[in-house]
Amino acid sequence: MSGGGNTAYGRKSFQRSKAHFTDRITADGREGWPVEAGRYRLVASRACPWASRAVVSRRLLGLEDALSLAVADPIQDDRSWRFTLDPDDRDPVLGIRFLSEAYDRRETDYPGGVSVPAIVDVPSGRLVTNDYQRITLDLATEWTALHRAGAPDLYPEPLRDEIDAVMAEVYEDVNNGVYRAGFATGQQEYEEACARLFERLELLGERLAGQRYLVGDTITEADIRLFTTLVRFDAVYHGHFKCNRWKLTEHQVLWAYARDLYQTPGFGDTVDFDHIKRHYYQVHSGINPTGIVPLGPDLSGWPTPHHRQELGGRPFGDGTPPGPPTQAERVAARGRP
Amino acid sequence: MSGGGNTAYGRKSFQRSKAHFTDRITADGREGWPVEAGRYRLVASRACPWASRAVVSRRLLGLEDALSLAVADPIQDDRSWRFTLDPDDRDPVLGIRFLSEAYDRRETDYPGGVSVPAIVDVPSGRLVTNDYQRITLDLATEWTALHRAGAPDLYPEPLRDEIDAVMAEVYEDVNNGVYRAGFATGQQEYEEACARLFERLELLGERLAGQRYLVGDTITEADIRLFTTLVRFDAVYHGHFKCNRWKLTEHQVLWAYARDLYQTPGFGDTVDFDHIKRHYYQVHSGINPTGIVPLGPDLSGWPTPHHRQELGGRPFGDGTPPGPPTQAERVAARGRP
Repeated sequence: MSGGGNTAYGRKSFQRSKAHFTDRITADGREGWPVEAGRYRLVASRACPWASRAVVSRRLLGLEDALSLAVADPIQDDRSWRFTLDPDDRDPVLGIRFLSEAYDRRETDYPGGVSVPAIVDVPSGRLVTNDYQRITLDLATEWTALHRAGAPDLYPEPLRDEIDAVMAEVYEDVNNGVYRAGFATGQQEYEEACARLFERLELLGERLAGQRYLVGDTITEADIRLFTTLVRFDAVYHGHFKCNRWKLTEHQVLWAYARDLYQTPGFGDTVDFDHIKRHYYQVHSGINPTGIVPLGPDLSGWPTPHHRQELGGRPFGDGTPPGPPTQAERVAARGRP
Repeated sequence: MSGGGNTAYGRKSFQRSKAHFTDRITADGREGWPVEAGRYRLVASRACPWASRAVVSRRLLGLEDALSLAVADPIQDDRSWRFTLDPDDRDPVLGIRFLSEAYDRRETDYPGGVSVPAIVDVPSGRLVTNDYQRITLDLATEWTALHRAGAPDLYPEPLRDEIDAVMAEVYEDVNNGVYRAGFATGQQEYEEACARLFERLELLGERLAGQRYLVGDTITEADIRLFTTLVRFDAVYHGHFKCNRWKLTEHQVLWAYARDLYQTPGFGDTVDFDHIKRHYYQVHSGINPTGIVPLGPDLSGWPTPHHRQELGGRPFGDGTPPGPPTQAERVAARGRP
């Protein structure tokens, strides 16, 4: 299973499953899972755009000490996400080798897929949630007591309707649209998804031509969700998923927008292009039977000037950027441009 | 089989076979095949870069009336190249349904592959040659009596050593290099081919930064051979063959060089992007099991200004450009940018 819900190849078209475990971790603990420093572990893959949303939010909000991070191997095996990057192939905090073990502790013989992002209750070892659409919103709004000083408001109350509307379109046509194109089993299904994707990207480009961020003048959840798809665009979606009308680098506005975010602390420092490329090209044997991982694209443009600050905007609103990632969470050199 | 020699997947690495039938059609007829107007038929696929060399040469030299053209369906079946674009699925001049029939008439039970370009002797229906490395040189040097007035010298005597040297490097690293990358069965084999390809392209870009054509100041055979790979680069080699360090459109010099040739009569008017894309994506099921043909890339840049004339150069030397293609040989609208 890819992250963020199960990916099912239906007879008709690609369907992304809803998350099965939708418990919420809240400030008041009303669902039995109170926000608590050190109690939970975020399991993510740096390859996965859905999980990467949570990794970015955690960095921007300064939740690293409160919510620890387990990074799964980008290559799943038939037991799905595994901790083969860790000593003894075992997550050092949860003590498990496969994320599925946390699912099993939550629900015996759960028949669905195993997906990231997942938040696991460390004391019991049980999965709390794999609700990729909700996790980041709760990090932004329920975990506030544990946010760092200067953390931005990623989901500002007065803008939520607009943020939700933008995110719904981005989800349908972009975040999930690339998968509908890439996992299409027929020409027409592919063409519809691909056409909608590029129509939406053009509209987003127009929106972003005159404003630095998608909604308001600060970074919000909407930007995080667009970013995690855009940063993968040329590396995997363009070729592997056949989303190839143009490369991101060929679209002046979106390329500048993506670079602006990439260069913002908390975004680019979470991105591992090596994990991204190996995951997509090696796991999806149905569309890349050889498993060969391309040498390209040239990533050297990511750190280049974007000039988006000329549009104004206040990236962190009244807040401040996060500091650098800890040494332990730094992305390996081979994953960086 | 792809055109231009058989493509064999060896245990170690991709090997392109030498052409099996290497008879030459010459002015003096010393091999039994004298140059003669109307006697031979060139069988090509507009998808195939090796065959397209001959189609371009024929146009530049004005050999359309002397040497007729059969265009095969871009999609081969298990009997290889076929004339399913023609009425009754039969080539109207040769009267055959499959190119293999002309091979069979030449050599019974020939065990090798069927490739384009092929030149067939119309009276006997026998294949004369499928020697993709030689056919165009002979069109340029042996068929001179039948050239149009104003035909260029595509293989000028004083420059042959240099042309041969450039073509040898282009063949190894570029023309065949894209195939070695795309048909690689292992990561290392792919990486070696892909790295060499882009190293060579960078060198060619440096060479072409200050001069309009590869050798001398006119179009030669060397330009034809580089063009037929470059024009396919973004459409198929970039994604399908994983030659994705950059797109041709991202390389300022080579993109301008390719557009310059594309816009030169005899080059772009032979190119059918529809045939190209469908052939590669639908025939190579080993690397694209779904057979889905991408919507991209955006081809609208091909007719845009290239400014290469500022470098000087005399495209046709003391000659003139060819006129437009005949109505019958005009590429269908869906194959054009």
